[in-house]
Amino acid sequence: MRTTPAFTRLALARVGVLATVRPDGRPHAVPVVYAMVDDTIVTAVDHKPKSTTRLQRLANVRSNPQVSLLAQHYREDWTALWWVRADGKGTVVEAGPTHAGAIEALVAKYEQYRRRPPSGPVIVIAVDQIAGWGDLRPDAE
Amino acid sequence: MRTTPAFTRLALARVGVLATVRPDGRPHAVPVVYAMVDDTIVTAVDHKPKSTTRLQRLANVRSNPQVSLLAQHYREDWTALWWVRADGKGTVVEAGPTHAGAIEALVAKYEQYRRRPPSGPVIVIAVDQIAGWGDLRPDAE
Repeated sequence: MRTTPAFTRLALARVGVLATVRPDGRPHAVPVVYAMVDDTIVTAVDHKPKSTTRLQRLANVRSNPQVSLLAQHYREDWTALWWVRADGKGTVVEAGPTHAGAIEALVAKYEQYRRRPPSGPVIVIAVDQIAGWGDLRPDAE
Repeated sequence: MRTTPAFTRLALARVGVLATVRPDGRPHAVPVVYAMVDDTIVTAVDHKPKSTTRLQRLANVRSNPQVSLLAQHYREDWTALWWVRADGKGTVVEAGPTHAGAIEALVAKYEQYRRRPPSGPVIVIAVDQIAGWGDLRPDAE
């Protein structure tokens, strides 16, 4: 999986949209920064004051672990669009070595996290499938 | 609703991510271009060859009308981030005046559609709630 253009494109993208399902069955979408740890995708709830939204994604994953993470790039030249979607199962991890490894990967990818690493729970997504469309060359952004 | 900064920001954004729920309960996310028609959001399946993905969103909405559309803008300056999310109920419309009105709004917003207007089904989203976060000034993109 790690050698496909879609995986590489996903690993390099700077932001994604995490889609989850609320306990009442409605979909929920929120932008997230994320990093890859082996074949998993990790994203954290950071140090900012928790809002309903941030708690919502955790409640959703705990209720229904199925998640979909989409990274995409819009251009006015529609021949140059691309998107990558990873579907998988999320787990909320609050502490321990998996949590520490996720924070380490996020801090390595995002300079913004270096000044203040996220301290909240992490969602670890075990990826079942990656789909991609469009121009997925890593230099195409 | 139409006078809020979140609504304006949503109307001006060029791309969104449409989150729906698959018949098996898993979330699904796909990038979409969209336009506002009064207080509804419309998006179309265009003339390109239909892929599984394009059909998937229609099957999802027919099975579960609850949708969530997220527009967001990523910047490396995390103090300048914003997102807007519209939650509502989607309906697949294949023809008739609502379909025509949706196509008209999409063509008006996207020059790319003028050359070849989308001819497939339209999803019309009746918005129940709009939530926004961050710098929602229309000139902040």
